[in-house]
Amino acid sequence: MKIAVDAMGGDFAPMEIVAGAYAAAQKQKDIFIILVGDKIKIEEQLQNKPQLANLNIFHASQVIEMHEEAALAYKQKKDSSIAVASRLVAEHKADAVVSAGSTGAQLVAGIFEIGRMKGVKRPAIITYLPTIKDDCLVIDVGANADCKAEYLQQFAILGSAYAASVLGKENPAVALLNIGSEEEKGNELYKETHKLLKKAPINFVGNIEGRQLLAGDVDVIVCDGFTGNVLLKTAEGVAMGILSILKTELMSSALTKMGAMLAAPAFRKVKKKMDYKERGGAPLLGINGISIICHGSSNSQAIENAIYLAEKCVRTKMIEKTIASLGKEA
Amino acid sequence: MKIAVDAMGGDFAPMEIVAGAYAAAQKQKDIFIILVGDKIKIEEQLQNKPQLANLNIFHASQVIEMHEEAALAYKQKKDSSIAVASRLVAEHKADAVVSAGSTGAQLVAGIFEIGRMKGVKRPAIITYLPTIKDDCLVIDVGANADCKAEYLQQFAILGSAYAASVLGKENPAVALLNIGSEEEKGNELYKETHKLLKKAPINFVGNIEGRQLLAGDVDVIVCDGFTGNVLLKTAEGVAMGILSILKTELMSSALTKMGAMLAAPAFRKVKKKMDYKERGGAPLLGINGISIICHGSSNSQAIENAIYLAEKCVRTKMIEKTIASLGKEA
Repeated sequence: MKIAVDAMGGDFAPMEIVAGAYAAAQKQKDIFIILVGDKIKIEEQLQNKPQLANLNIFHASQVIEMHEEAALAYKQKKDSSIAVASRLVAEHKADAVVSAGSTGAQLVAGIFEIGRMKGVKRPAIITYLPTIKDDCLVIDVGANADCKAEYLQQFAILGSAYAASVLGKENPAVALLNIGSEEEKGNELYKETHKLLKKAPINFVGNIEGRQLLAGDVDVIVCDGFTGNVLLKTAEGVAMGILSILKTELMSSALTKMGAMLAAPAFRKVKKKMDYKERGGAPLLGINGISIICHGSSNSQAIENAIYLAEKCVRTKMIEKTIASLGKEA
Repeated sequence: MKIAVDAMGGDFAPMEIVAGAYAAAQKQKDIFIILVGDKIKIEEQLQNKPQLANLNIFHASQVIEMHEEAALAYKQKKDSSIAVASRLVAEHKADAVVSAGSTGAQLVAGIFEIGRMKGVKRPAIITYLPTIKDDCLVIDVGANADCKAEYLQQFAILGSAYAASVLGKENPAVALLNIGSEEEKGNELYKETHKLLKKAPINFVGNIEGRQLLAGDVDVIVCDGFTGNVLLKTAEGVAMGILSILKTELMSSALTKMGAMLAAPAFRKVKKKMDYKERGGAPLLGINGISIICHGSSNSQAIENAIYLAEKCVRTKMIEKTIASLGKEA
């Protein structure tokens, strides 16, 4: 299996990206990693490390920066690392691409290099949300800020196929994010989507409210990209905020300080559970190839985990199974 | 000061409502409470308690139930407790109304009994969000599921006036909830709103992402009612979820269990900080009177705190100051 890693994308590129790719290549010999980007800069990062047979470099001369307008930058920089890495997937020279660079650029490269699956109107980003049970999935978390009900219906099908293939869930429970449990709740978009989901070829279990998010009772939560992104960042912000408030309170007396010391292993476990770096990245669904979107601030550990996630998507035949699910819909 | 309390609204009405109103009347002799609802049922709740000079009953024969379609129920039940209580405010027989009943019914009663402020297109619900510093305010959290940019602009002005009057903030910092800090981020509604807020007579500090929610760096966060409601419930769900995950982890070994025991006071403080019952309720802004919306599941403590919040809104002349702020806009 070959995985193309965009070595130039992300706040800590190429250092953290190369380090993460190297770690994955070292541990999993059956993964062949192609580092895509500036050959000289990548070699600099590798110079003190023993050479690995399953890690090589594919040169790309340009980089799309975070602040650039994605569609325009993609057009102007045909040799950008994300375009080249995505092209390797399109040309079947790689099985997946992993990037921590501009999400917009990765989305555009996914659509124009790799191409949308037949019938898919809008590719969407799916991500993992920790719950008190297993992780659940949320789709879309940012690819589509403005949505129509028919897009959300497709997100539901894409998300359900992902849960079935990659997570091995039988008949995944799919819920619609909403502001009430009753069918008639929500804004116009969500009311219309609810009707469509009832008829979709998925196990639709109804609306879910933010309050039940962490209960872990559903496998896939469907929403538009604006709301999904707000939800994701709110969950992250609140989780970190709570731990920070708790830390302040714990440090306020000698007794609670001692309690905190004894309880430290539990805190570490919770922090780890809530840490996006443990999950690595969020797959872009609805395109004819695997493209894993990582946090801009990804460190080597996040990149390494994103590579394992890409490997899992390939191994579980996510693409083939998703295409089959979409076929059922038509 | 007179506060009308809808004794029949809420999951635990009339018991918890009457108990909360009684507690407030007992503690704050300058608040005169009018319990609105079924006289016999309310008297049942009061029968074993010493009579208070500042607590009386105003009979209303009907109740709007949670499951009823609000606008229709309001039309059909002119003698419902929420309509009657709101009418007392409209007729200046009460200074504020507090209810834990149907939010939709309270909104409709607010608009049709009390009336919108001049120029206000859509009243909105403002609520308190705990942060690592002071609480911040979020508007709208559910009155308007479908919004236009001009509504959001008014929410910003209403929220700013509220922070200035009730919280005594000078030049409150108002931010727009969004999925990125840059001006061009967001969906169409939020991009347009950003432009309007830059021109509005408020201290607009730009976009805020969910990740910074609990940092407490802004006073007011503006969003549409759908997104705001998702945000609020997600924050609540994640906060409770984290504490629940932490509890499970803490119980997993003898050492962490002991740590948890010692650290218990800190946990209690955090739980209290995150508990909506501490704040009582969320004011409905943009109408010519004070109407405090409480959680359907409010207990007596929540109702008591909502009464104190109503009292604070009256005392700080929230209505007069908001009207003055709206005047500045025109």
